[in-house]
Amino acid sequence: MPKRALVTGATGFIGSHLVRHLLQEGWVVGVLGHKESLTSDALDCNIQSFYYSGITSEVIKSVTEFQPDVVYHLASLFLATHTADQIESLITSNVLFGTQLLEAIGQSRCRVLINAGTGWQNYTPEPPFDLPVFSPVNLYAATKQAFEDIALFYVQTTQLRMITLRLFDSYGPGDSRRKLLRLLLDALKTEQPLGMSPGDQILDLVHVDDICRAFLHAAKRASEDLSQGAAVFAVSGKERMTLQAVVQQLEKAARRRLPVEFGRRPHRPREVIHPWDGPELPGWQPTITLLEGFSQLIWEEKKQTKRSNTSG
Amino acid sequence: MPKRALVTGATGFIGSHLVRHLLQEGWVVGVLGHKESLTSDALDCNIQSFYYSGITSEVIKSVTEFQPDVVYHLASLFLATHTADQIESLITSNVLFGTQLLEAIGQSRCRVLINAGTGWQNYTPEPPFDLPVFSPVNLYAATKQAFEDIALFYVQTTQLRMITLRLFDSYGPGDSRRKLLRLLLDALKTEQPLGMSPGDQILDLVHVDDICRAFLHAAKRASEDLSQGAAVFAVSGKERMTLQAVVQQLEKAARRRLPVEFGRRPHRPREVIHPWDGPELPGWQPTITLLEGFSQLIWEEKKQTKRSNTSG
Repeated sequence: MPKRALVTGATGFIGSHLVRHLLQEGWVVGVLGHKESLTSDALDCNIQSFYYSGITSEVIKSVTEFQPDVVYHLASLFLATHTADQIESLITSNVLFGTQLLEAIGQSRCRVLINAGTGWQNYTPEPPFDLPVFSPVNLYAATKQAFEDIALFYVQTTQLRMITLRLFDSYGPGDSRRKLLRLLLDALKTEQPLGMSPGDQILDLVHVDDICRAFLHAAKRASEDLSQGAAVFAVSGKERMTLQAVVQQLEKAARRRLPVEFGRRPHRPREVIHPWDGPELPGWQPTITLLEGFSQLIWEEKKQTKRSNTSG
Repeated sequence: MPKRALVTGATGFIGSHLVRHLLQEGWVVGVLGHKESLTSDALDCNIQSFYYSGITSEVIKSVTEFQPDVVYHLASLFLATHTADQIESLITSNVLFGTQLLEAIGQSRCRVLINAGTGWQNYTPEPPFDLPVFSPVNLYAATKQAFEDIALFYVQTTQLRMITLRLFDSYGPGDSRRKLLRLLLDALKTEQPLGMSPGDQILDLVHVDDICRAFLHAAKRASEDLSQGAAVFAVSGKERMTLQAVVQQLEKAARRRLPVEFGRRPHRPREVIHPWDGPELPGWQPTITLLEGFSQLIWEEKKQTKRSNTSG
């Protein structure tokens, strides 16, 4: 019998890739999210959609109806920095919705929750890197931690097992986020100078397919060992390098120089210079090197440019 | 110049006593809370009231206008056990409101937050009592921890200093809560048998005046040493004893036997048998013994009974 996965954040970058991986592996997939986001044509027609209206009883109804074996909780509101008027949305998206989901799971026969955390929950400005308490880079990361602590109540009072995967930077095809690689790929195309920070911060880029494999591996692990309660693992790409070295890798993949000008901008406040060095997810390894991943991205970019030129 | 204190939860049992202590010590007091609760006649006319409407910008306006030196954050929704339809209220009262308050403090010249936590954030079913992670007794305690997590972000990114006082059981005059001592005092009056659990759980009862002194002491400590970031202390009454022994103390104070029948009810799920053994607030000591505090309570009860008999 195929396994049943309920995914939140299914239309996000990682979420949409995860849904594809789950379908490929034969899972029955349901998604739970705001109606506006779920009507996106990114969703496969084999997927059952459940709409989140803000009401706890409706979240319970969705989980009860779908009967997942595993819930993958990827939904969150990401804000690098927040303004006062975004606080309510941050708490609602990252704490309240998750707690409603936990309540619903607690009332269902589902025993496994795989939760997307962030390396930013563990800001490490200076060595030694293991601070006594968690230290969030921003309010977004603080709300992720708040959710994890609320989840501990459910783990300790129900049969739920939870693995939180702390993610670093992700990349891969179909990424519309205005993040580093998008800026670099655009600079490659336009040849416009791109002013950046000094570039000495260490990045931990992981290909989205490797991240999805980590999620599936975590679900397997939690399902097989129901004794372990709540666990937290880092999903690290194993090729940690400075931003400068990342640019060099991309230049190598593109076989061209990038018009990047380092030192033109200051570091952000609380810029992560050393990513968190947390325990690794046992039994999982990234399989796609940066050079391979970047080459794939550049190839996709060229294909798209050609396509839009042809149709234009 | 007198110090300015903004108090949340000012109409609760501890909050109302704290406001009285602050006024006695010459503080200028403002209170922030729902309009319905603040129109209570429990409030002194010297107090400036700010109404909480749910909107972040209005919390910021209140804090900006009052300009507190210290914020005492005691407001919370307490639920021993929750139902699904109470989740939104728990998150709103115990996480969202606190976060809005932190944002407002961060934008003000206030540097000190004294926060009311609960010993229930650290459920300790068995020795050894220091678990690796926090372990909440109930969802209420989990939301208190979630707030503390979020507060760490503000402590680390602003000049705010925070002391969280983890409270255990409180008692004292004017306590209308349906808690242990109320039940015992009622049984003393009515002489109706009172069925209880086996009574082997250890209680840590602290007189409300001692708790208020702990809050003022914590504010002094945080104001004098601005280097320390976030700290957590237990406010323990130092006379930890079983529920059975507490009943004996009350019998001693009343000079009468109480009609208590132990073992008639089971322990609650996750009954706290051993209260958390956390670090004590340095420089503070309880001054009121249980026998003194209980004698005062019984005397107050008699006075009230007499008064209502006279007026009836």
